[in-house]
Amino acid sequence: MTADKTLPLGFQTAGVTCGIKESGKPDLALFVSDVPVRAAGVFTQNQVVGAPVIVSRSRLPSETVRAVVINSGNSNACTGERGITDARQMTSLLAERIGAGEEDVLVCSTGVIGRFLPMEKIEAGIREASQQLDGTSQHLHRAAQAMMTTDTVEKVVTRRFDVGGTKGTVTGVCKGAAMIAPNMATMLAVIMTDVSLSPGRVGELLQVAVNRSFNNISVEGHTSTSDTVLLLANGMSGVECHSEPELEQFQSILNDVCMELSRKIIRDAEGAKHFVTVNVQGLPSEADARKIAQAVCNSPLVKTAITGNDPNWGRIISAAGYAGVPFQEQDLSLVLNGVVIYEAGRPAAYDEATLSNSMKSGVVTIDLQFRLGKAHVTYWTCDLTAEYIHLNADYTT
Amino acid sequence: MTADKTLPLGFQTAGVTCGIKESGKPDLALFVSDVPVRAAGVFTQNQVVGAPVIVSRSRLPSETVRAVVINSGNSNACTGERGITDARQMTSLLAERIGAGEEDVLVCSTGVIGRFLPMEKIEAGIREASQQLDGTSQHLHRAAQAMMTTDTVEKVVTRRFDVGGTKGTVTGVCKGAAMIAPNMATMLAVIMTDVSLSPGRVGELLQVAVNRSFNNISVEGHTSTSDTVLLLANGMSGVECHSEPELEQFQSILNDVCMELSRKIIRDAEGAKHFVTVNVQGLPSEADARKIAQAVCNSPLVKTAITGNDPNWGRIISAAGYAGVPFQEQDLSLVLNGVVIYEAGRPAAYDEATLSNSMKSGVVTIDLQFRLGKAHVTYWTCDLTAEYIHLNADYTT
Repeated sequence: MTADKTLPLGFQTAGVTCGIKESGKPDLALFVSDVPVRAAGVFTQNQVVGAPVIVSRSRLPSETVRAVVINSGNSNACTGERGITDARQMTSLLAERIGAGEEDVLVCSTGVIGRFLPMEKIEAGIREASQQLDGTSQHLHRAAQAMMTTDTVEKVVTRRFDVGGTKGTVTGVCKGAAMIAPNMATMLAVIMTDVSLSPGRVGELLQVAVNRSFNNISVEGHTSTSDTVLLLANGMSGVECHSEPELEQFQSILNDVCMELSRKIIRDAEGAKHFVTVNVQGLPSEADARKIAQAVCNSPLVKTAITGNDPNWGRIISAAGYAGVPFQEQDLSLVLNGVVIYEAGRPAAYDEATLSNSMKSGVVTIDLQFRLGKAHVTYWTCDLTAEYIHLNADYTT
Repeated sequence: MTADKTLPLGFQTAGVTCGIKESGKPDLALFVSDVPVRAAGVFTQNQVVGAPVIVSRSRLPSETVRAVVINSGNSNACTGERGITDARQMTSLLAERIGAGEEDVLVCSTGVIGRFLPMEKIEAGIREASQQLDGTSQHLHRAAQAMMTTDTVEKVVTRRFDVGGTKGTVTGVCKGAAMIAPNMATMLAVIMTDVSLSPGRVGELLQVAVNRSFNNISVEGHTSTSDTVLLLANGMSGVECHSEPELEQFQSILNDVCMELSRKIIRDAEGAKHFVTVNVQGLPSEADARKIAQAVCNSPLVKTAITGNDPNWGRIISAAGYAGVPFQEQDLSLVLNGVVIYEAGRPAAYDEATLSNSMKSGVVTIDLQFRLGKAHVTYWTCDLTAEYIHLNADYTT
């Protein structure tokens, strides 16, 4: 048991194999609080959403949530009315086992789209998992595994902190490695804390953290139908975060947990060989900075240049140029891995071989520096490799 | 000499090797009219544009253009004041050879970004090419080759037509195969016609045609700094297109030439194994239809599913869902290669193996049918293959 994975007080988890995945890998996870939590969620912006998104979204924000049930291997998306009935059924099955109301259980699903859930298997899985619930890191580990699709590593982040001598804990678990073959996957995260948060502030805290983390990562720019991030705060540690300074402190820890989980997704992105940080600064608005960061992060030509350790700055500059943000070339400089390669609209002299070598470390930082304002944003992305193509193409139904 | 490649009356072309490309392949092309043409252009929407775009754009529309000089192997982009001086110099060198004013010559460049043009080589190339100018298909062929970067085939389309018994010709030449490694490439097109077009209508005719063709293709969604389409009408055939019916007839031929050139670009797209047509119909506005077509065409997950001949419709539906156009699932149906696979928001029964087999032909048609209006659009794209990655990544400076 490593200290990094111990749960916040009053939370129990479990992960089991119930047979949704043909591989026999774990595919059903439970996250349960002993007492009601204040809960909020952030969901996909896709017009097409999975049934679990419809159900969970309708139950949030809440002050009475007790648990989350998650399955992998089937996203229960594009499944119509029956999908919604099945999603509700999952929450009611777990609610019964833990003595909660159906409305106080949330649900997430990730995996193949357009197929109905095997409800008998899921019912058996919920029964089995609910008997295994406990607060050990071993079970947290299994729950994290049961959320995975093409993820190769489980993704858990824990932070501990003091407020007036009382220790609080935030533990986040997430999955995500791209929208992936043979079928669509999803970014899901559950963040548990034993801190008591002011009513009405949970959603805001979560939205701020998501805007600095999960909203700033891109593998290939494809938004899934099931993306969900949940924050559950049960207050069991006795740590109270109600004053503005306390909430600020918690916000900072929550941001940190979400950013680290986001980076774990990028590090585990399908086929990726490079971890890429894109800093865009000096623009009139954060919206402008986001447009440019997204254009750079989603450009297959920028990504493949990085795959080849090629400091091909023309691709980066031209991606910035088509992002839809007005600027003049002389207002832009570009720094790659600390080396100025384009300065105020002009090519700068640099050693290409040295810069290319620095990219071979697998870590690439792109700084796009404008002089048009004070807004800035940081995004994380990865390169685009032949392995990504093979993972997503070499499958025939 | 094939009939398909004979030029409109009064046009002469040439293509030579002047040494910009290390490969020794042709890299300088001339398009010259014996008499002044009515000319219009459509240029890249990128904020960062090459020097030739700045120069040519400033000279259009025009009624006195005589010629276009194009080099490949170097895009003369991100080259500051010196780049603009060089681009102007190219036009003045050609103007001198053909007895025109500098302002009556246009210029395009495509290839590596951020390097200064080798002006001595270009000067020699313009001299040599101007001595070879003629109206044969052989020279048109060489001019088309001299525009190519990673294109594997030259791209020429000719259409002949009658207006009141007089024969007119439209010949279009273009290049483009992606934004390509080791450096950026570009979509360039020159369309010559011996028809006389009403003053002030040339730009409108061209813009309409471009909106149905070059604006509707995507290899990977990266807009270059140099994209240029030029229409040159010299009136030498005696065909007059001035009345609305005549202009409509010409518009239809021009659309046809531009669409066929566009499809040639997609068929020659880097590494592509599938030619994909995306029809989006039944939306309130063409802008909505375009957003959805673009999201589908630019999704690496849609592209890789096609690479694998996988009718993975969840990827197509979810790409439509994040395009930024509001709709309900029940308002959308999806037809793939003629097979209904998603109908009014519900999965439809179909034979996956048969559908997958039909995709192996290399031709895929995606019909996204909404019932929210009458606007529609057709886009063309290609799949995303490991070969594309290798072409764009396996290069280290």
